[in-house]
Amino acid sequence: MKNYTSIEWIDANKTLRLLDQSVLPAKVVYNDYTSAGDIATAIKNMVVRGAPLIGVTAAYGLVVESFRVKAADISELADLIEKADVLLRATRPTAVNLFWALDEMKRLAPVSKFETQTQYKAGLLSAAQQLAEQDIQINKKIAQHAMQLMPKNAVTFIHHCNTGSLATVDYGTALGVIRMAHEQGLATTVFVDETRPRLQGAKLTSWELKQLGIKHYLIVDGASSSVMSNNKVDLCIVGCDRVAANGDVANKIGTCNLAIVAKAHKVPFFVAAPLSTIDLNTLCRSDIEIEQRDGDEVTNIDGAQIAPEGVLVYNPAFDVTPAEYISAIITEKGIVYPPFQENLQKLKEA
Amino acid sequence: MKNYTSIEWIDANKTLRLLDQSVLPAKVVYNDYTSAGDIATAIKNMVVRGAPLIGVTAAYGLVVESFRVKAADISELADLIEKADVLLRATRPTAVNLFWALDEMKRLAPVSKFETQTQYKAGLLSAAQQLAEQDIQINKKIAQHAMQLMPKNAVTFIHHCNTGSLATVDYGTALGVIRMAHEQGLATTVFVDETRPRLQGAKLTSWELKQLGIKHYLIVDGASSSVMSNNKVDLCIVGCDRVAANGDVANKIGTCNLAIVAKAHKVPFFVAAPLSTIDLNTLCRSDIEIEQRDGDEVTNIDGAQIAPEGVLVYNPAFDVTPAEYISAIITEKGIVYPPFQENLQKLKEA
Repeated sequence: MKNYTSIEWIDANKTLRLLDQSVLPAKVVYNDYTSAGDIATAIKNMVVRGAPLIGVTAAYGLVVESFRVKAADISELADLIEKADVLLRATRPTAVNLFWALDEMKRLAPVSKFETQTQYKAGLLSAAQQLAEQDIQINKKIAQHAMQLMPKNAVTFIHHCNTGSLATVDYGTALGVIRMAHEQGLATTVFVDETRPRLQGAKLTSWELKQLGIKHYLIVDGASSSVMSNNKVDLCIVGCDRVAANGDVANKIGTCNLAIVAKAHKVPFFVAAPLSTIDLNTLCRSDIEIEQRDGDEVTNIDGAQIAPEGVLVYNPAFDVTPAEYISAIITEKGIVYPPFQENLQKLKEA
Repeated sequence: MKNYTSIEWIDANKTLRLLDQSVLPAKVVYNDYTSAGDIATAIKNMVVRGAPLIGVTAAYGLVVESFRVKAADISELADLIEKADVLLRATRPTAVNLFWALDEMKRLAPVSKFETQTQYKAGLLSAAQQLAEQDIQINKKIAQHAMQLMPKNAVTFIHHCNTGSLATVDYGTALGVIRMAHEQGLATTVFVDETRPRLQGAKLTSWELKQLGIKHYLIVDGASSSVMSNNKVDLCIVGCDRVAANGDVANKIGTCNLAIVAKAHKVPFFVAAPLSTIDLNTLCRSDIEIEQRDGDEVTNIDGAQIAPEGVLVYNPAFDVTPAEYISAIITEKGIVYPPFQENLQKLKEA
C-alpha cells in the first residue's frame, strides 16, 4: 500500500515538505521549503508536478513566505505576499489550477479580513489547508462518479502521464478512478504510457500502481494503437491541466495523439477534471498558452545523451485535445457529456 | 556530408564490415564479421537494423560463411550454407526483406549452377554484391518517383524511425526521399520522431540529417499532433518492414499512431517501400507476425533505469497500419494509390 506523501505541512517548523518527484522511482527524497522563491523553483523544475498539486503547493508557497518574511506591519506583509503571488504565478503557464489556487487564497484569506500579521498568517495557513483537504475529497467524488462508466467485473485502461497521489494532494484524478475501480473489486489492468519526455508514466504511475497492487504494463507512447488492436481496451483516461469553455482539453504532450487513436479504435476517451481546471474564460484551444520546455528534457535521459550534440528540439510540455475526441469529462459534480459548450456552462452554474 | 558506410565487403579478408548502430551517435564503431552465426547475432541485437539493410546483411552472412567453413565437397558446402540460411531466417520475424534477400540468394546463386566450391563461393559473393548495388538504385528510384508528391519551393516532413543510409546499403528509402528533396533545392524541414523504445529517430536519423545539412527538429513521438496543429506539415513519410496484399503496412512501433494522427489532421501519409517489402502472400495484417522484444528496451535507456524494478512491459517492435490510413505507397516502379489490393497486384505483375 501507499507509503508516501506528495505534500505535507510541518507546523512545528512552518515548513512545507515535498516529495522530490524528479528523482523517483530511484530515490524517495523529501525536501523542506521555507520560502516562496524556493517553492517557485521547485514547481518550475518539476520537483512537484501535476496540476492539482501545483495549485496547492503554490498556496502553501504564500504560507511559508508569510512566516519567513519580517514585515513592519500587516500592510507590508500583504505587499510581500502579493510579490510571492506574482512569483508563483510566473512558474508554469498552462495549468489553470495554479492561478485558481492563488485566486482562492485571496478569496478565502483576503488581507482585509485580518487585523494583525499573526491573524493573517493563520488565515493563509487555514486557507491552504482547506484547499489541500478539499483536493482529496474532490478526487474521491470524481472517482465515485466515474464508477458508472466502468464495465462489469473487469476493466482495462490506457492511462497517460501521472495523475495519482503524486499529482494531487492524495488519491489522484484519473488514477483515482483506476484506484477506485480496483478497490471496488474489478479486475483492473492498466496499460501505462511511459509519457515522454519526462517519463511520468514510467517513473511515477508505474511506481504508484505497484504500491497499490494494480496490474499494469508499461508501454511506449507510440504503442497505444497496437495495444488497442491486440487487446480489449475498455477506456482511456487522463487528467488535465485546463478545460476550455468549448471542451478542448490541455494536458501533457501526447494526450491528443492518444485521444485521436482511441477514437479511431472506438475506445472511449475520458478526462478526469476537478472543476478548478475548467476555465470558462478560456474559450477554446487558441486561448491556451502552451509551455515550451528546454530541449534537454528530450535529448538527455537521466544523464544518457540520446541525440547528437546541438540538435534542435521542439518540446511543448502540453498539447490540446479538441473536444470532438473526448467522450466525457468527469468532475466532482458529475459527468459532463457533449455538447460541452452548453453542458460545462450548466455545470459551473449549477 | 556523409562520411560513413553502413555495410562494406572487405574482399582481402573475406569479411563483412558493419557499422555498429547500437552505439551511435556517441561512437562510430565498425565491426568485422566472418561467420553467419555472428551476423545473425548482430541482426538480433540490432547492431544492424532497417529492413533493406537486414536483407543484404543476411545475404552476405551466407558469403562469409562459405569462406569460413571447411567442406569436403560442394555438396557439403551447400548443406552448411543451408544451415546458415536457416539460422539467419530465425533472427527477426517481421520484415520480409530478410526472407526475400535469402530467397534471392538461392535464385541468383543456386548450388546446381556451380561445379566447384570456389565457383559457388564466388557466385554467392556476386549475388550479394548485386543485391547491395541494386538496393542503392532502388532507393534512388523511389526518391525520384516521390518528387512528384512534393510541394513547390518548401517542404516540411514528419518522419518516424530511421530509413536512411543506415537502414539501407545507402541513400535510404523514406529518408532518401527527404534527401532528394533537399538535393533538388527545396527548403526542407523535418520533424524527427525520436522513435521509442530504441530511439532510432533521435540517435540515427538526427545524426544522418545533421551530416546531410538538412534542417530538423527532434520531437517525442507523442508530439506529432501538436506539430501538425501548430505548423504547416506537408506530409508524413515512413519506410516499412512489410506491405500486405491489401496495403496494410508493418513498420516500427508508433507508425500506426502517426498515420492515424496524420489522417485526423488531413496530412498525407506516405510509405516508401522497395518492391521487396511488398508480400502478396501476406493477405492482411493478421498474417504478419509481430516481433515482441525484451522489456529492458523500454525500461533501460543507455544504462539509465527509468521504471521500477520488475515492471511488466508490453514491447512489440512493430505495429501494422491499416491501408485506410495510407495515402500512397512509393516503390521503385512508381507510386501506388488506393485501392491497394488491386493496384499492388497490378504493380507486381507489371
